[in-house]
Amino acid sequence: MSEETTRRLARFIVESHWRDIPKPVRHEAKRSILNWLGTALGGCNDPAVDIAISALREFSGPQQATILGRRERLDILSAAVINGISSNVLDFDDTHLRTVIHPTVPVAAALTALSEHTPITGAQFLHAFILGVEAECRIGNAVTPEHYNIGWHITATCGVFGAAAACGKILNLSEQQMTWALGIAATQASGLTAMLGSMTKPYNMGHAARNGLTAALLARKNFTSSEHGLEAPRGFAHVLSTRCDLNEITANLGTTWELAQNAYKPYPCGIVVHPIIDGCLDLRTAHGITADAIERIELRVHPLVMKLTGNPTPQNGLQAKLSVQHCAAAAFLFGAVGVKEFSDACPIEPAVVALRARVAPTVDEAIAADAADVVVLLKDGARHHAFVPHATGSLERPMSDADLENKFKALVEWGFSTCNAYDVIELVWSFDNINDAAALARTTVPSATRTL
Amino acid sequence: MSEETTRRLARFIVESHWRDIPKPVRHEAKRSILNWLGTALGGCNDPAVDIAISALREFSGPQQATILGRRERLDILSAAVINGISSNVLDFDDTHLRTVIHPTVPVAAALTALSEHTPITGAQFLHAFILGVEAECRIGNAVTPEHYNIGWHITATCGVFGAAAACGKILNLSEQQMTWALGIAATQASGLTAMLGSMTKPYNMGHAARNGLTAALLARKNFTSSEHGLEAPRGFAHVLSTRCDLNEITANLGTTWELAQNAYKPYPCGIVVHPIIDGCLDLRTAHGITADAIERIELRVHPLVMKLTGNPTPQNGLQAKLSVQHCAAAAFLFGAVGVKEFSDACPIEPAVVALRARVAPTVDEAIAADAADVVVLLKDGARHHAFVPHATGSLERPMSDADLENKFKALVEWGFSTCNAYDVIELVWSFDNINDAAALARTTVPSATRTL
Repeated sequence: MSEETTRRLARFIVESHWRDIPKPVRHEAKRSILNWLGTALGGCNDPAVDIAISALREFSGPQQATILGRRERLDILSAAVINGISSNVLDFDDTHLRTVIHPTVPVAAALTALSEHTPITGAQFLHAFILGVEAECRIGNAVTPEHYNIGWHITATCGVFGAAAACGKILNLSEQQMTWALGIAATQASGLTAMLGSMTKPYNMGHAARNGLTAALLARKNFTSSEHGLEAPRGFAHVLSTRCDLNEITANLGTTWELAQNAYKPYPCGIVVHPIIDGCLDLRTAHGITADAIERIELRVHPLVMKLTGNPTPQNGLQAKLSVQHCAAAAFLFGAVGVKEFSDACPIEPAVVALRARVAPTVDEAIAADAADVVVLLKDGARHHAFVPHATGSLERPMSDADLENKFKALVEWGFSTCNAYDVIELVWSFDNINDAAALARTTVPSATRTL
Repeated sequence: MSEETTRRLARFIVESHWRDIPKPVRHEAKRSILNWLGTALGGCNDPAVDIAISALREFSGPQQATILGRRERLDILSAAVINGISSNVLDFDDTHLRTVIHPTVPVAAALTALSEHTPITGAQFLHAFILGVEAECRIGNAVTPEHYNIGWHITATCGVFGAAAACGKILNLSEQQMTWALGIAATQASGLTAMLGSMTKPYNMGHAARNGLTAALLARKNFTSSEHGLEAPRGFAHVLSTRCDLNEITANLGTTWELAQNAYKPYPCGIVVHPIIDGCLDLRTAHGITADAIERIELRVHPLVMKLTGNPTPQNGLQAKLSVQHCAAAAFLFGAVGVKEFSDACPIEPAVVALRARVAPTVDEAIAADAADVVVLLKDGARHHAFVPHATGSLERPMSDADLENKFKALVEWGFSTCNAYDVIELVWSFDNINDAAALARTTVPSATRTL
């Protein structure tokens, strides 16, 4: 049975109908796309994006596809690379918690580019997107956690399959061609976590998007590959992981949907700090606390929080993302912990430094890893307490549609994209009724040059 | 010390001078290039090449670089892909025997394309090529044989470094940039041996060439990556191999040269059959033997030969490549065992079938794996014997320059390329004195459209 994993997955993708997709999964797809577009618009003017465009532009093809949030247009393969970089550079992605895959980046970066070349409806886009995420996360499930633990950047190594599956669906591949597309994806699977902290980290995503799209384009012309790219003795699962359970890829296909397990980050920092930020923001709002009124902020946290993020004196934005002290101080000081609070300037601002010195975390084995206990003592002697059992953005307490809209607007502002955030939001929520899916990318173009 | 492997390799490449390269290594580089161009011209009209061009052309950039042996021109990155495919599709490559890397394909495919965009001399080309092969094969040495045995297509996974190093040298990268280029190469390292037997097998080569060139182009613009791409705990060597000896990468840099260990295949089939073909061809020539005079061909061979290639009734070209019986019959019948003798038509020709039935191989544990013992019994009662201690193309009995020229001419003819073989041969032997390295690619263009 496991001999046929690749073909069975291919057949499922090829035979899937839009009517088979449950309504909540369709809506989750829109939420994922909105969240992803926000991260792309927030990152679209990042130096990594500027450099990648300047390095590769002169070798790129016709101006077929939008660079999200910018004026340049590139061929669809190059656009997939750049949009993959921009939408991952801020570390503000969605997360498939079981695998730590950020599912939308590689699939949507490829699909958005292709949708500007191959006319499809919004519903077709969402359908292909859902199937791409399904392939990507199921393959991730089959090799998790050993695959990531070894050092594979799982969003890239599994994302290439998601991009191939989604693009192959749009290109109407036959079962045979889809099988080849998954094989061509398998042989291109790559991306090392050694790259974290450098520009090549988000490049891994763009590369996966490009490679998955390439796989689908080659397979469409009957470029052959192994028909057992996933399960062959020298195929993806056995070569790239010490553990593989191929049954994860094919069990309950069409019954369960991985996209339903998608979660969204409310704060662009290490996920273990999220419940603490929630607690601080809740207290600030509930009691109208200003920073200068605070005597001490006491945190009781799971040991992992201090191990990963115990840093009382972060000196730049990257360090601030891994400082629970910074996050707590910023929450009380600014009433928000977004990309601005992780700029290189923020953690060295005198007001931040002063309040951060008043943050006192203590480890408590009894606190769950996704919970937090926050006490704020005021100079007037008042004492306020908050307990957060699950962080915002967890599956138990998901971000609401309104939360996602607010995150999106903040990211558009942060990224200096002059596109109209309200237009994009409206388009995404009605995307299943849109005739031309290419409108999605075009709506992000700065208004002066919009070609809608 | 091992912490600095990537940087030390980068520094060596950056600081190397042409005057440091020993003369025999320079000459071996020309031999490798001639052999490689032959394989590219032999494969340039293969269906895999046609399909890849037709699938990717509409997304490709300016017509910057030659598709070897053809009229199309594509951007340099796309040309690297296609020329990587064409030059590997016939399985007629050179081989770095210790690692079974085919060293020239990924390095030369990237470099040839870049040389049409960045003006360099023939000597600069050869120098960068030698350094690329050095990086590629040393990295292969560090992870061999576990890396290949697991299922990594080592020419692709190590070739991406070779292409990055060679192209980085041409682009005058600084030590820091070269370190990043090797890191960006590391994160793209991919290619599974599960793809053998499909079009994706040679695609692995083209993809590696493209990715290595991309790495150098990004690094030139200061796109950052891990500075420990090779040696980091979650870097290339540890993630892609259960064994790694990083010392292999940095020991004796500039003293030993991996290109000096390069070998060339005289016959496009499994290497274990080569001494048997030698023996048959020698007997045919020495005694003027014609096929209809033959009663029986007796082969004494190492057990591995029968295990890998014992097939008395091959039905197509691919099976014929793994049939010692076919190879022996073809050698006596045609006096040559080249690409023509592995067409799908050849193994089912009646004359071939008839003579093949007279081939009688027996296993002999006493015969070395690279040796063969051939006896031909004629219908008139004569008996002739040949013992071959080492095959043509082995390091002990290398193909001569004249052998390589003949192989090249046969491949040009086979590939239906109408370029002038003599022009190319002359250019390669004088390549270190050529001012414009781009002439190499241009000389392969079919004559009617040559743009020299």
